[in-house]
Amino acid sequence: MSEVAQAAARCKEASRTLVFLESDAKDAVLRTLASSIRAKAASILEANAADMAAAREADIGDAKLRRLELTETSLDQIAQGLEQIAAMPDPIGSTTRDDTVPSGLRVRKVRTPLGVVAMIYEARPGVTVDAFALCFKAGNACLLKGGREAGRSNAALWQLAQEALSQHACPASAIELVTTSDREELKQMLTLTESIDLVIPRGGETLIRFVHEHARVPTIQHFQGVCHVYVDASADLDSAIEIVATGKTSAPATCNTTECVLVHESVAGDFAPRLAERARADGFEIRAEPRFANAAGHASGVMPASEGDFGHEYLDLILAAKVVGSLDEAVEHIARYGSDHTEAIVAEDKAAQREFVRRVTSSCVLVNASTRFNDGFQLGLGAEIGISTSRLHAYGPMGLEELTTQRYVVEGSGQTR
Amino acid sequence: MSEVAQAAARCKEASRTLVFLESDAKDAVLRTLASSIRAKAASILEANAADMAAAREADIGDAKLRRLELTETSLDQIAQGLEQIAAMPDPIGSTTRDDTVPSGLRVRKVRTPLGVVAMIYEARPGVTVDAFALCFKAGNACLLKGGREAGRSNAALWQLAQEALSQHACPASAIELVTTSDREELKQMLTLTESIDLVIPRGGETLIRFVHEHARVPTIQHFQGVCHVYVDASADLDSAIEIVATGKTSAPATCNTTECVLVHESVAGDFAPRLAERARADGFEIRAEPRFANAAGHASGVMPASEGDFGHEYLDLILAAKVVGSLDEAVEHIARYGSDHTEAIVAEDKAAQREFVRRVTSSCVLVNASTRFNDGFQLGLGAEIGISTSRLHAYGPMGLEELTTQRYVVEGSGQTR
Repeated sequence: MSEVAQAAARCKEASRTLVFLESDAKDAVLRTLASSIRAKAASILEANAADMAAAREADIGDAKLRRLELTETSLDQIAQGLEQIAAMPDPIGSTTRDDTVPSGLRVRKVRTPLGVVAMIYEARPGVTVDAFALCFKAGNACLLKGGREAGRSNAALWQLAQEALSQHACPASAIELVTTSDREELKQMLTLTESIDLVIPRGGETLIRFVHEHARVPTIQHFQGVCHVYVDASADLDSAIEIVATGKTSAPATCNTTECVLVHESVAGDFAPRLAERARADGFEIRAEPRFANAAGHASGVMPASEGDFGHEYLDLILAAKVVGSLDEAVEHIARYGSDHTEAIVAEDKAAQREFVRRVTSSCVLVNASTRFNDGFQLGLGAEIGISTSRLHAYGPMGLEELTTQRYVVEGSGQTR
Repeated sequence: MSEVAQAAARCKEASRTLVFLESDAKDAVLRTLASSIRAKAASILEANAADMAAAREADIGDAKLRRLELTETSLDQIAQGLEQIAAMPDPIGSTTRDDTVPSGLRVRKVRTPLGVVAMIYEARPGVTVDAFALCFKAGNACLLKGGREAGRSNAALWQLAQEALSQHACPASAIELVTTSDREELKQMLTLTESIDLVIPRGGETLIRFVHEHARVPTIQHFQGVCHVYVDASADLDSAIEIVATGKTSAPATCNTTECVLVHESVAGDFAPRLAERARADGFEIRAEPRFANAAGHASGVMPASEGDFGHEYLDLILAAKVVGSLDEAVEHIARYGSDHTEAIVAEDKAAQREFVRRVTSSCVLVNASTRFNDGFQLGLGAEIGISTSRLHAYGPMGLEELTTQRYVVEGSGQTR
């Protein structure tokens, strides 16, 4: 067996115990890991420094370097995240249905772990801890395939997690880390249906396409977020400017950033020049189709859009902009160019709000709020392992509950049929 | 575009309208279809007679012939099924969460259709109507790939469904039927990720393996049911005999039939001879490992089991039987040979019941009831499209709710971040 298949088999074995682990034991492991991350910060940072030095040498680019870097502060945040997850209610064993059917059987649906969750991700070492914490709290073993650049940092964190598990008599293989970057081994991992129950890829489109192409194990995709804001004829324009501008600038590299604004023609004459002014002040560029550019008076910072600008995930300080003739046209644009991730309407008119919500079926549809709120913390899940844009199993942010399944537990008194 | 790709594209287009169809319109379509199945029974039966004649000529076997056959009575049952589904509450739009988070956003989770559900099945023409009714009620378009043998019967039912849709101004492509049995076209269908949201294969293991191998579209598997009953030391043996014998004989060809009994050694001396006697009376064969065979006094009808008898889905009047030393050993046996479908314990001891339910995580675990109750109707779902043995999205019987997803609808008052 390959390294990956062996690690997956160890996870599967561990998962059989995790199914019935008590909540207290799970929470104790997470708190111990938080403490040891704080206590061993120096050695984690040393491993991270070595990763950073190698990455600089390999010239992986500033964005990746920033994601790779750990600091005292970020380690403390990681530890706090663990304590927060430990404090959350245990989803396992909770009952989502409980009734008695005509045959006299008491039928319950009860949350149960998925089993083994494999996660494939890139540079960010914090994900190693987050993913483990969420999977473990939900009773799953996790098989982590982190980026090669973060190898030393991930190994240091993994070791602490295994120590915390062992200290509380839990199977150390509740977390396994594989370091191969061999494509063949990765492909093999994606076919281990006997030992892996779910694969979650997190990363660029190339990774996600690769997983999609080769996976036989069920996957949940976190495709791109091409998030739209539609500014209705009835919009409060002050609020619309604020929602669009902050939606673009507050975290332009995240999947819930606003990538395109669609404005109703009846308010475009007011809205477009004000947004152009705000874009200059806040330092983002507008890629406008001709009507929007006209409405904005061809202000500086407003560039002409090409067809490729619509449906594009910039992840940068760039915003596509278009005038639409009606809410209908906005909905059609979103159906054509959207990614089912996040869409918002700014409108005072209740009928327009209702119509937008009824017809746009993205994972999160917001009324008078920024697209940036499609996030597990912001929507009250406590934490998230990613945002699903596929409809099976989970749609939108995936928190603890989305890392479980539900099974039937049925109690009778000798019923037969 | 191939025939299949064109049909899938029409379904996708139709699904955009189905998302916001009113419940009344959906129920009217289902009731109209029920009426027209009754009114046009003669012509459906004529089409079916032609299928049956061709099938007899092709010598497809008695079991398949029985599944293929329609009668006045079975058509009336199909029509009744439609009326029952019409009378059920509409899952779409129902809210599964509604609360206000600290930022002041009102966060709701709302049920929404999956989109396009493709179903691949074999001879039974009734499935054509059932699958359409469940998918449509849940707001989905369905692309049906039925068995070649049932071609004329399916086409007759499909035509009536499209007429019922058109009569109520609903898109006729809410149901599309493809008749190809070309493997390449079937493979292509399994990769249409742009137009198909879910594939459900129903049929023999060869079909399911084929789908599993080639699908890029998400699938929900309905693998075999190797269902176990564990008779504990504390069991009421009268009840245990009844549960095991009827679990085997009442419908031996269904996936929830009992395939294997495990009996605790302390009661095997009483249980085994009684079960052997019952087997003779009811006409089923026992394949026993040596300890069970000894306990049964090597009665007639008790044959020696070979290793292949454990984990085997007979779908026939055959039952594997084994003596175990403990509940632990039963749980281990199930982990090794079970198929995550259905397992039952017969026990009076509450601690044994609890332990079994805690450690066996099949889609349905029953206490003192027959495995035959793992069924959408019996568990109160009203209907089912199949029983999932994979943990993602749905685990156990899939009813209307399992044909939906949930999305976030968030209402604010200008919130930004």
